[in-house]
Amino acid sequence: MKITLAQLNYYIGDFEGNLKKILNAVRRARDLGSDLVVFSELSICGYPPLDLLEREEFITTCNRYIERISESIDSKIGVLVGGPEFNKQKEGKLLFNSVFFLLDGKVQQVFRKSLLPTYDIFDEYRYFEPNREFTVLEYKGKRLAITICEDLWDEQPFESEFSRSRLYTTNPLEELTGYNPDVIINLAASPFAHRKMEVKQSIFTGKAARYGLPVLYCNQVGAQTELIFEGGSLAINSTGDVIKRLAFFQEDFMLFDLDELARETPIPAEGEIPDRISMVADGLICGIRDYFGKMKFRSATLGLSGGIDSAVTLALAAEALGPENMHVLLLPSQYSSSHSIEDSVRLAKNLGVRYDILPIESVFNRFRDTLQLLFGELPEDITEENIQARIRSTLLMALSNKFGNILLNTSNKSETAVGYGTLYGDMSGGLSVLGDVYKTDVYLLAKYFNREKEVIPENIITKPPSAELKPDQKDTDSLPPYDELDGILEAYIEKQLPAEKVAAMGFDKNLVGRIIGMVNQNEYKRYQSPPILRVSSKAFGVGRRLPLVAKY
Amino acid sequence: MKITLAQLNYYIGDFEGNLKKILNAVRRARDLGSDLVVFSELSICGYPPLDLLEREEFITTCNRYIERISESIDSKIGVLVGGPEFNKQKEGKLLFNSVFFLLDGKVQQVFRKSLLPTYDIFDEYRYFEPNREFTVLEYKGKRLAITICEDLWDEQPFESEFSRSRLYTTNPLEELTGYNPDVIINLAASPFAHRKMEVKQSIFTGKAARYGLPVLYCNQVGAQTELIFEGGSLAINSTGDVIKRLAFFQEDFMLFDLDELARETPIPAEGEIPDRISMVADGLICGIRDYFGKMKFRSATLGLSGGIDSAVTLALAAEALGPENMHVLLLPSQYSSSHSIEDSVRLAKNLGVRYDILPIESVFNRFRDTLQLLFGELPEDITEENIQARIRSTLLMALSNKFGNILLNTSNKSETAVGYGTLYGDMSGGLSVLGDVYKTDVYLLAKYFNREKEVIPENIITKPPSAELKPDQKDTDSLPPYDELDGILEAYIEKQLPAEKVAAMGFDKNLVGRIIGMVNQNEYKRYQSPPILRVSSKAFGVGRRLPLVAKY
Repeated sequence: MKITLAQLNYYIGDFEGNLKKILNAVRRARDLGSDLVVFSELSICGYPPLDLLEREEFITTCNRYIERISESIDSKIGVLVGGPEFNKQKEGKLLFNSVFFLLDGKVQQVFRKSLLPTYDIFDEYRYFEPNREFTVLEYKGKRLAITICEDLWDEQPFESEFSRSRLYTTNPLEELTGYNPDVIINLAASPFAHRKMEVKQSIFTGKAARYGLPVLYCNQVGAQTELIFEGGSLAINSTGDVIKRLAFFQEDFMLFDLDELARETPIPAEGEIPDRISMVADGLICGIRDYFGKMKFRSATLGLSGGIDSAVTLALAAEALGPENMHVLLLPSQYSSSHSIEDSVRLAKNLGVRYDILPIESVFNRFRDTLQLLFGELPEDITEENIQARIRSTLLMALSNKFGNILLNTSNKSETAVGYGTLYGDMSGGLSVLGDVYKTDVYLLAKYFNREKEVIPENIITKPPSAELKPDQKDTDSLPPYDELDGILEAYIEKQLPAEKVAAMGFDKNLVGRIIGMVNQNEYKRYQSPPILRVSSKAFGVGRRLPLVAKY
Repeated sequence: MKITLAQLNYYIGDFEGNLKKILNAVRRARDLGSDLVVFSELSICGYPPLDLLEREEFITTCNRYIERISESIDSKIGVLVGGPEFNKQKEGKLLFNSVFFLLDGKVQQVFRKSLLPTYDIFDEYRYFEPNREFTVLEYKGKRLAITICEDLWDEQPFESEFSRSRLYTTNPLEELTGYNPDVIINLAASPFAHRKMEVKQSIFTGKAARYGLPVLYCNQVGAQTELIFEGGSLAINSTGDVIKRLAFFQEDFMLFDLDELARETPIPAEGEIPDRISMVADGLICGIRDYFGKMKFRSATLGLSGGIDSAVTLALAAEALGPENMHVLLLPSQYSSSHSIEDSVRLAKNLGVRYDILPIESVFNRFRDTLQLLFGELPEDITEENIQARIRSTLLMALSNKFGNILLNTSNKSETAVGYGTLYGDMSGGLSVLGDVYKTDVYLLAKYFNREKEVIPENIITKPPSAELKPDQKDTDSLPPYDELDGILEAYIEKQLPAEKVAAMGFDKNLVGRIIGMVNQNEYKRYQSPPILRVSSKAFGVGRRLPLVAKY
């Protein structure tokens, strides 16, 4: 049996567009003599549709488009396509998360998701009733165990220490293998997380080896607002070796002969997944590109400060959108050092990006004049620093409003974590590019961009980080060195360790307490942050929900 | 048996504070000869703790404080207190949402929540495993059916048309009544929604009548960031009549003799729930007061535009925080009408609130000078309107930063819905007071404040609404009259009707299409909005999750 995996980039709710992609892939698979073509989870509408699933017209439209696909399917090629399905029982959630098997002009059989992830960024039990009945697909003499994403994740490799591997009380594969299937097929929408690529692969190879069955895994690819799906669909033989991996961060399409799979040469277990930082770079570029592409935006702007965060953001955006679609501003104040401007100009020229220089001092002085009535002779403090950040944001948004360039936010995860950022100032933007990238990784990204030639001027990488909002300011005036800070943050945020365990990793106890306090006290700021491209297993945003009003 | 309902306002994570409140109530109940005192759902930590439940130290602290309560309990009075409990099974979620029965120095018995709401603002299946085993509490010769909030909501009265009453496949009361209980006790954390007060009550009276059992319902009271819990705990006799209701929006405490309940005179079914608008006003005041009180903030600011939204926000805030804790700014531009300033001054004087007038024209002109380099001779457009809004926000935030006054956002639900607001401008603030109140209800709130004497100057209520960001601007230049707009919005947002059904209610089809399009296109703006005090069954914010990048 010849099975095609079609790894596509869907646009949520764009039924005509998704239909066209699906039908093209079916046509191509048929031309190659494929017996079956497999798409990803909820492919008809794109994943995750979130509360669009609560709208009746959205579900009936999904159903209508499933029918439109089935109408174009003859008896030669079967199709497995994902979509929401009405739950016809009188009790339980209104929907199932289902896979429709199409053949010969109609829906022949439906398979439903049993394990509904409801943690981190996942909210599936908000919408779906879990499946409790199991069967296999019998087709052309083979038995296919059809599963949907989490169905293979009955054992979870969570990063947090306070978690358990067995979140569910059912195990779909134990049920399905009772029917003696010939292959496990998994339609997925599994998002990217940079330290989980090998773990993710081991889930599939582990299942294959355990049950002695080949696994064909078809993942969604492309970004949906903050969530980036890396693709990387897999064909695994029955001994648990990876035979083939589809492309990362782009659409791909591949045919496998099920009966030949055992004879194919596996790819080496190591060395085939690109290194972590290049995956992060590719993921972020994909995230920017799809945000703009799907929103029908073309051009972007950002403020180049002379620091490394805005430099790396610009390098990523220029690659995603093309340098000709970037128009950046340099917004120096009286506290900006001359090298900040020189470095920024050099960066813009290296990348071939249009830049303009708008000094903010005169607006800043006028703000001070206006506030004189209220402030009198009070000394300057963080108020005046924030005014500068907000003037910059207002100028960038003016460019955005006038010309349609979307403002990219340049804050990194380390400063977002401890609340070093000005609301409505440098925390502004339509999309946060680096909000899930710790400062130490921002440096690695800079080096990655410079791997062949200088893109980011060396001085931007080597000079001590500074917000330049008051004279001679340095980040280390009030923060520990970034490798220390990031170590504490990752232990607290990703691994969810309590303070004592973080300190036990070798950090100063008082420092740990202070940093954790800063993280907790700044939930209110992050609540108003732009969507953050997610590249880790625990990003700020929808996957992390903490009360703003709470005593920790 | 004498049972006390203790309706308290908890502070999430403030274990010492919550413990003190609980122990005080136990002492008081014991002094009155009570046999049992009932607190609300997750009372030990406050509801909803959200992802704090994913931190091991949070759960062990909850457990330690439950033990501290139990240690102080003798054999004379039992206590029912809510808290998270470790699930000792190897499979399933790590926690149960439980009620601990304390007596004689220790935890005697534990009851677990069976129905876990996972919709709208609720995410309980994110954390908790549902209970599947049922038993009653036998205590002093009575059998008590212990339930937790949603356990009584097996039949849901959802406002949305695309929903079903039976979300769950189990029915705890059917199970529990098999044990012949004498009373149903419900520990709840049930948030306020202004059109649902009667419906909510009917759930409890309906259960009482159906099973012929008294119902004692103890709700949490007070606000937790955006969620407002109205309290209003109930004692209902076995024929389904309300005997007593505890206070709305404040702590309350009441003892009931279970054996006397049948002889008590019911309160009238009508007329006892205050009218809708006064409930909304009280809810919002409670929301502001608790946000500030729990955050340890004392004072607030906002921009008075001369319009009705900022006027009503100020009236609410002055009542919540005291006029002496308000310091507002009038920020006129060249487009502001003279009556806007006069009306605002009069309002501030009526309320006894400090105000200052800071004209923004000179800062605005300097922004224009600075942008001349980029904009040249391009005509003015929305860019310049937004600059004005952002100058105002920067001045208000400067006052906030310098003096610690928290900026209150004054946007209403109608404009938030259609995206009439400037990001980082008038959409700024630490808390949105009216973001869940349609404009037509803002007018009713204004009239409510004027019910005895003029608080809000009549001219603010009667003049046509205008953003005053360009000459002679009126809201109706680009929007339909607010009663029409709000009718469409409520049908689309609260009732989740598709466009055709909204139009079928009597609205112009093209207008409906245009308004729905505006709602959908502005998800990106609302993503960055401050937390919005929730007073309806479907507020913007955590309870409404839509993809930003999607084609509707």
